[in-house]
Amino acid sequence: MTDFAALDRYVQDRLPTWTDELIELCRFPSEATNPEALLGAAGWTAERLRRLGARVEIVTLPDSADVPPLVVGEIGEGPRTVNLVQHYDVQPAHPLELWESPPYEPVIREGRLYARGATDNKGELMARIWGVEAYLATAGALPCRVRFLVEGEEESGSKNIGPLLDTRRELRRADAALIEGGGIDPTDRPFLDCGVRGILMVELLVRTLRSDVHSSVASVIENSAARLVAALATLRDTRGAVALDGFLDDVREPGEADRAHVRALPTDDLDELRSAYGAAHFLMGRQGADALEAIAFEPTANIQAIWAGYTGPGTKNVVPAEARARLDFRLVPDQSPERVEAALRAHLDRRGFDDVQIQHIDSTRAWWTSMEHPVVRAARAASEAVLRQQAMISPSMPGSAPMWEVCSRDDVPNVSLGAGRTDCMAHAPNENYRLSDAAIAARITARFLDEFAALD
Amino acid sequence: MTDFAALDRYVQDRLPTWTDELIELCRFPSEATNPEALLGAAGWTAERLRRLGARVEIVTLPDSADVPPLVVGEIGEGPRTVNLVQHYDVQPAHPLELWESPPYEPVIREGRLYARGATDNKGELMARIWGVEAYLATAGALPCRVRFLVEGEEESGSKNIGPLLDTRRELRRADAALIEGGGIDPTDRPFLDCGVRGILMVELLVRTLRSDVHSSVASVIENSAARLVAALATLRDTRGAVALDGFLDDVREPGEADRAHVRALPTDDLDELRSAYGAAHFLMGRQGADALEAIAFEPTANIQAIWAGYTGPGTKNVVPAEARARLDFRLVPDQSPERVEAALRAHLDRRGFDDVQIQHIDSTRAWWTSMEHPVVRAARAASEAVLRQQAMISPSMPGSAPMWEVCSRDDVPNVSLGAGRTDCMAHAPNENYRLSDAAIAARITARFLDEFAALD
Repeated sequence: MTDFAALDRYVQDRLPTWTDELIELCRFPSEATNPEALLGAAGWTAERLRRLGARVEIVTLPDSADVPPLVVGEIGEGPRTVNLVQHYDVQPAHPLELWESPPYEPVIREGRLYARGATDNKGELMARIWGVEAYLATAGALPCRVRFLVEGEEESGSKNIGPLLDTRRELRRADAALIEGGGIDPTDRPFLDCGVRGILMVELLVRTLRSDVHSSVASVIENSAARLVAALATLRDTRGAVALDGFLDDVREPGEADRAHVRALPTDDLDELRSAYGAAHFLMGRQGADALEAIAFEPTANIQAIWAGYTGPGTKNVVPAEARARLDFRLVPDQSPERVEAALRAHLDRRGFDDVQIQHIDSTRAWWTSMEHPVVRAARAASEAVLRQQAMISPSMPGSAPMWEVCSRDDVPNVSLGAGRTDCMAHAPNENYRLSDAAIAARITARFLDEFAALD
Repeated sequence: MTDFAALDRYVQDRLPTWTDELIELCRFPSEATNPEALLGAAGWTAERLRRLGARVEIVTLPDSADVPPLVVGEIGEGPRTVNLVQHYDVQPAHPLELWESPPYEPVIREGRLYARGATDNKGELMARIWGVEAYLATAGALPCRVRFLVEGEEESGSKNIGPLLDTRRELRRADAALIEGGGIDPTDRPFLDCGVRGILMVELLVRTLRSDVHSSVASVIENSAARLVAALATLRDTRGAVALDGFLDDVREPGEADRAHVRALPTDDLDELRSAYGAAHFLMGRQGADALEAIAFEPTANIQAIWAGYTGPGTKNVVPAEARARLDFRLVPDQSPERVEAALRAHLDRRGFDDVQIQHIDSTRAWWTSMEHPVVRAARAASEAVLRQQAMISPSMPGSAPMWEVCSRDDVPNVSLGAGRTDCMAHAPNENYRLSDAAIAARITARFLDEFAALD
């Protein structure tokens, strides 16, 4: 039996030193467009894992020098293996002018570390490492094998994690996987997600002319923007629901137990979401449990951007030659991005929009684990032991992560656990991580190893 | 009787020097967003008119330092006055990457001057000045009073030409007005337009959120772009025709004679338009005389720009908080911009789009002169004398110009004459003007003064 009181003291003692090393890691501006910083962050991570005692391997793709490497660190022995799926890249820090301190000059204010990546995912990565270190320091040896899989393209769509893992097929073999983050709510209740949604991102392109033409001939010249607008309008019905033919064909209907579970979740977070963003009401007038169900179970079709013509100050009276839109579709089990993209093509063709081109950007599938799975029970026990409140469990986080690529081949269950909060501002200016939450995340991670190793 | 052989020789002799001065004028990037360049081009124009011998006045609006001035130049005496309505501002040059040479570094290639404004309207303005100079140099004195009215906001909607003219009401009094441009077709046939279309420009705005939100919540958060797309889609039917309720209510039905006139026009220009812009076919499969009628008589509704979300390289998975589109409506007699804007508001409200805001940008009405008017006869005679081919006459140019503001109060007839061509690429990248056409436009302008002064 591990002495968790001693482990908690170790975490508390080490936190100042650990904070210094998190600050070091956050200094790398490891955005997708900065290959040097990506390599720097990868090297730093590898070195830290070696210091932990892990066998470290830097996995690269042959003939693809521009693909950030996958840092693999293995430590511990035992009949079971857990994959810790993390990343060392970060979202772009822009818009810089909204940061109160520079995103790559980490500072501590009122117990929070402010930096791009402070939570997502450098803070969360370090909390996993610290949890393992604390376990080792307290118990001497790990109760299972722990495998860190730390990629460098998560924020730009994890395009190569599949091919990278394909070069070392044994890396996928595991009995559980932890999703990168994990949350707690404003009252410190743990919030576990049992999966991630998939995503399909495409760019639609309509080109009707070689170049823009004076709008005086609009009665005879086809307008690319009008064409794109007409095509996009068919993807939504008048209430605001997705109207893409066949979009729901492959959706696995949630069971009554799943629904009941979701409907019982508290709605405080929803109210906070609405008021934080100033939304007058939810789409289609959804409220409370209905909104919770929509977020949990429904796939989405979202126009993330659209543009055509001259959009600067002033005006330009042209028929635009080219119009573009980027769409993202958040997918649930058992949708496949390929089938959704094919459905989109067929939907457009059926309505005469064969002039609307679809350019694939990237995609991944959803990967959900049953909310009753033993691994979820272990995550719940670990979280509740630290936070002393009942955990809330949801079938999936609303967002996407490459768990399908990591877990599906060997049918590895996954779950999230940790201590991220809405006000950590992941992906937004002034991203931050409460250092006390980092300690909580480390303690939960350490306890999970015990719970996981002890599962029947 | 003016010695036009001598005048033509003068034009030929002076053309190289004139080309240099046109190059000078085209170097001003006098886009609406560049007040310094606008003032530079205005000052240059005023100086050039003074050098011509004109009495020049810079008309400004009191307490409106940001309104580009109206440059007025009067020269010549006689019982009749013609207003030459021109402008020194230009369309934005964007997209810059499609230009073969920089838009504000004019260069001559194969007899054409390439620059933004080379035709529209700096080349056309200079051809008017050169015509007057040539007339003076050959005949000694003008046969009528010529009044240049050169504004600086034509490309952004001529918002202030009315108020500017209101400060000097005598400036509108005239017996004829020449519209800024004037065209010839690929076989050098003169093409006269007896009017201009009106225009209404508006910006539509939908705001659903205080700021963009992560697209994982797209199932409950309203997407501004999807809302705007849905609203815009109602403005067009499935064939591509304008579907704005009441849009055609005030349209003055063209007479049979007008229709016959238009249907008899040659269609070469249409074919050239299609091939220059690489349009696969005309909207709604229109061809020949049907396309000519559409261009001549139909008002238009055009999406000139649309934008929402992050449109830079990469992707940003957000539900955009705000979406915007700019529309232009080309109007014919007797449509009023106010009634069309009210029709748009009512159309959107009737369909539940009261969340779509309409922001007025600017507007002007159409101003058409009878194709049988004596001033049109004078323009025809002048054009046919130079080009030695029968002129084609159309009720209106497809585009807009502020002739309503200049002419309607005193019921001044207007017509265009000159030598612009479809492949001059006005408003498009690689705008250009054949220098030989500039000479033709100058010669036609000079002859028009004689024909106009001699009208019964």
